[in-house]
Amino acid sequence: MCQLLGMSCNVPTDICFSFTGFQARGGITDTHTDGWGISFFEDHGVRMFLDHQASARSPIAELVRQYPIKSKTVISHIRKATQGKVSLENTHPFQRELWGEYWVFAHNGHLSGPLPELSGSFQPVGTTDSERAFCVILQALSDRFGRNRPSLEELTTEIEALSKKLGAMGEFNFLLSNGKALFAHCSTRLAYIVRQAPFTMAALKDQNLKVNFKDVTTHHDIVAVIATQPITTNEDWTTLEPGTLCVFSEGKILSSLKTVAGEPYRPECKAVSSQ
Amino acid sequence: MCQLLGMSCNVPTDICFSFTGFQARGGITDTHTDGWGISFFEDHGVRMFLDHQASARSPIAELVRQYPIKSKTVISHIRKATQGKVSLENTHPFQRELWGEYWVFAHNGHLSGPLPELSGSFQPVGTTDSERAFCVILQALSDRFGRNRPSLEELTTEIEALSKKLGAMGEFNFLLSNGKALFAHCSTRLAYIVRQAPFTMAALKDQNLKVNFKDVTTHHDIVAVIATQPITTNEDWTTLEPGTLCVFSEGKILSSLKTVAGEPYRPECKAVSSQ
Repeated sequence: MCQLLGMSCNVPTDICFSFTGFQARGGITDTHTDGWGISFFEDHGVRMFLDHQASARSPIAELVRQYPIKSKTVISHIRKATQGKVSLENTHPFQRELWGEYWVFAHNGHLSGPLPELSGSFQPVGTTDSERAFCVILQALSDRFGRNRPSLEELTTEIEALSKKLGAMGEFNFLLSNGKALFAHCSTRLAYIVRQAPFTMAALKDQNLKVNFKDVTTHHDIVAVIATQPITTNEDWTTLEPGTLCVFSEGKILSSLKTVAGEPYRPECKAVSSQ
Repeated sequence: MCQLLGMSCNVPTDICFSFTGFQARGGITDTHTDGWGISFFEDHGVRMFLDHQASARSPIAELVRQYPIKSKTVISHIRKATQGKVSLENTHPFQRELWGEYWVFAHNGHLSGPLPELSGSFQPVGTTDSERAFCVILQALSDRFGRNRPSLEELTTEIEALSKKLGAMGEFNFLLSNGKALFAHCSTRLAYIVRQAPFTMAALKDQNLKVNFKDVTTHHDIVAVIATQPITTNEDWTTLEPGTLCVFSEGKILSSLKTVAGEPYRPECKAVSSQ
């Protein structure tokens, strides 16, 4: 199994604090040692760092931890290989282009069903179920909307349907983004926190490090952090209910949709303003 | 204008020495300060580092210079912006997937003609003529060969034709690779050297640094380095004739083809074994 970390903000923000805790799970406080990666959306571009070494021992992870890259949307992943050998091509996140936008995807879980056929427009380079599922999603979006980039509402409806379909094949926790919206699907384990004024102090769970966000933010900043397991010990993280697709943008939750049978699940919309 | 650096080897090799000289051209010995990038193919994967800061002042470039990443195919670029603002999405190299392989492209020059229409299968994210030309190439390859990955010979013939067509629109020095072959097109300026046993000492042009390759290689290593301008002062670099497409693989030149009218140009094939 693997772990996911994501961030969505209304102003470019660095993820050094959260990444410091997350990085430790790749070999110090946990056993996700089969590679790691992180993608920073910056305007329309993406800066991606990948390493098939454990994050706790990776010089590139050390750079990312210490170098404050400012981004409004970040996706990171530490890997514990289940399908596909330990190699760079099997290291998440994965990146493709669709509609002149970069799309980035990282997955935690395991899909056991035979995934839908690929027509060739998006093909996996490595051998993971995760990259194949990403290609299935992009192909479906491309087939559905053709050359016309859809609205966020249309996109959300389609990604919700795809999450439902692929989620039925196994464990399908994922983070997916085109830089504007961050789609977070909880199949079994995913939690988030939205930080906004009044900012307070936070203490990492996996490293002896605290930060007072009051010192490093402005009054109007909104920062959502999404992770497989909470990154801090003293904050009130919201655990997503299994079978939920949450859409984040500019630090806020735009929508939260059930991808398994049942009533729409929306308690976290309340949590946004009560943090 | 920009500068290109490429490497093709028969064993995974680090590019720290050459990159140390190249990096200096982004703000110390030359004025290519509008971003830089480097892509390392490792097995089927690609590790890419991008920064829109000058390479001479970039902490990420410092990491690349000091961290020996072993690769058989490398493409790097330092940018002096002519088209498109200074931003991450306009920073070379660019990357896409085709036939389940990553393709990487970097360009030095300026294309002034209106480039062929894009159908949507590959679209630029940024605003450079370079990324658009890359999309034109991939679209043409995809249209020509469909879902079937062609042989290297077929690929070379098609890329030669595309180089000819796009090269007629301006200055089109480029490096293009799928990790197996490195296509180097000289429109105006490109030089290369092939290093093999008996290895000797080399001195950088842009930094006070020497290396004795005898100390860091084995007898069967073959390493080709391609650059806009020679990286070292004491070695015998071959200047490519304008209008030449050279195909490197495993450190060797597989073919060298004229992309402008005239006789095929093959003197560098001789240089390979006489270095």
